[in-house]
Amino acid sequence: MDARAIKSEAEELIDAYVQCLDDDRLEEWPEFFTDTGVYKIIGRDNVERNLPVATMSCTSKDMMRDRVVAIRNASAYSPRYLRHLVSNVRVPGQEGDCHLVQANYVVFQTLQDEETKIFNVGKYRTKMVFVDGRPKFQEKIVIYDSLQIPGLLVIPI
Amino acid sequence: MDARAIKSEAEELIDAYVQCLDDDRLEEWPEFFTDTGVYKIIGRDNVERNLPVATMSCTSKDMMRDRVVAIRNASAYSPRYLRHLVSNVRVPGQEGDCHLVQANYVVFQTLQDEETKIFNVGKYRTKMVFVDGRPKFQEKIVIYDSLQIPGLLVIPI
Amino acid sequence: MDARAIKSEAEELIDAYVQCLDDDRLEEWPEFFTDTGVYKIIGRDNVERNLPVATMSCTSKDMMRDRVVAIRNASAYSPRYLRHLVSNVRVPGQEGDCHLVQANYVVFQTLQDEETKIFNVGKYRTKMVFVDGRPKFQEKIVIYDSLQIPGLLVIPI
Repeated sequence: MDARAIKSEAEELIDAYVQCLDDDRLEEWPEFFTDTGVYKIIGRDNVERNLPVATMSCTSKDMMRDRVVAIRNASAYSPRYLRHLVSNVRVPGQEGDCHLVQANYVVFQTLQDEETKIFNVGKYRTKMVFVDGRPKFQEKIVIYDSLQIPGLLVIPI
Repeated sequence: MDARAIKSEAEELIDAYVQCLDDDRLEEWPEFFTDTGVYKIIGRDNVERNLPVATMSCTSKDMMRDRVVAIRNASAYSPRYLRHLVSNVRVPGQEGDCHLVQANYVVFQTLQDEETKIFNVGKYRTKMVFVDGRPKFQEKIVIYDSLQIPGLLVIPI
Repeated sequence: MDARAIKSEAEELIDAYVQCLDDDRLEEWPEFFTDTGVYKIIGRDNVERNLPVATMSCTSKDMMRDRVVAIRNASAYSPRYLRHLVSNVRVPGQEGDCHLVQANYVVFQTLQDEETKIFNVGKYRTKMVFVDGRPKFQEKIVIYDSLQIPGLLVIPI
């Protein structure tokens, strides 16, 4: 596959991923990862200081499924609309089977009877791998600029 | 045409469309549609509850032209700058001659002497068709997350 | 090079450019330009009224380097995270060796202990040229909708 085809696959994967989240189809979210996939949300401050503290950390698809159940059962979760915009998708290189893919994102949140607000901005730093010809995330690190994630419960970004 | 070429045409169409709106060339806006083109703006709440109430509804290019005249004549319309960003363009399938195209958008608004604000966020759900080899919207449904469209007068998004 | 390949090069150039700014690698910023490259930041108001007043103006790569030194030495510059999203990249034509490229952008800013805010929105109007096979900006005009650029010191956008 040439560089442009790989970038195109990366864009398709990311676009399907954020559509899943925007549509609140959380149960399908782990399917974007390999079985041993890693998902983390980390503040940019922590990344730059090499602090390993993650706001959310799942080191397998099973952990992601547990997280989804926890979110669905949480009473603290208020109804909201999320909307992701992603741009600046780049494929800077390869590590073994994995293609390195990064992108910038913004998530807007609309709570009931409130104005739409910026929920979170940052970048995706991911490793994409092909499993049976289909692209999956082997690793997805969400590095957010925003200093705090509003709300009590952390949801996938 | 292969899938990537169709996606590329869809992106070009959307990019030209939003540039037209950002440049305030409203008179050209209906030209992005077929003669029988449909344009609607509907709240996400209404779509999810299957309520047919649209915030704006034009079911032909002529209705769109009338709408533009109404906007130009309206005294309630204050000068503003709009800026669209669109991402996550996807082409999930085809219905007859039409290619289904969806995308996420955000519109920023800058009113005179005010800070730039989020005007509206949501998604485009469109049907694209080729007329004499040129892409047009046969249908464009704007589904917005934002609970209210600020201002008295509804403008195309 | 065909139209899609040129657009792809333009997107790569812009994506690398904004990543450089987001990563605060300001010293590399002039390298995106030719030696005689021009960089300007101008308010949309001024552009539409044909007023030549630019908020920032560099007419060579050396001037850009001086600007970077000035920013680094400025005490008024508070630590911040910037995040660019760019979309609607279009290549409307060519002027001699230069490809005309435009795009919409939004920059989000996160100051220490503050919520992420909209810093600036507008469009890039650029001329891209190939130097030894690599794309560079011959000219980059940033036309911003936002009425004021917050903060005392103007940084590249």
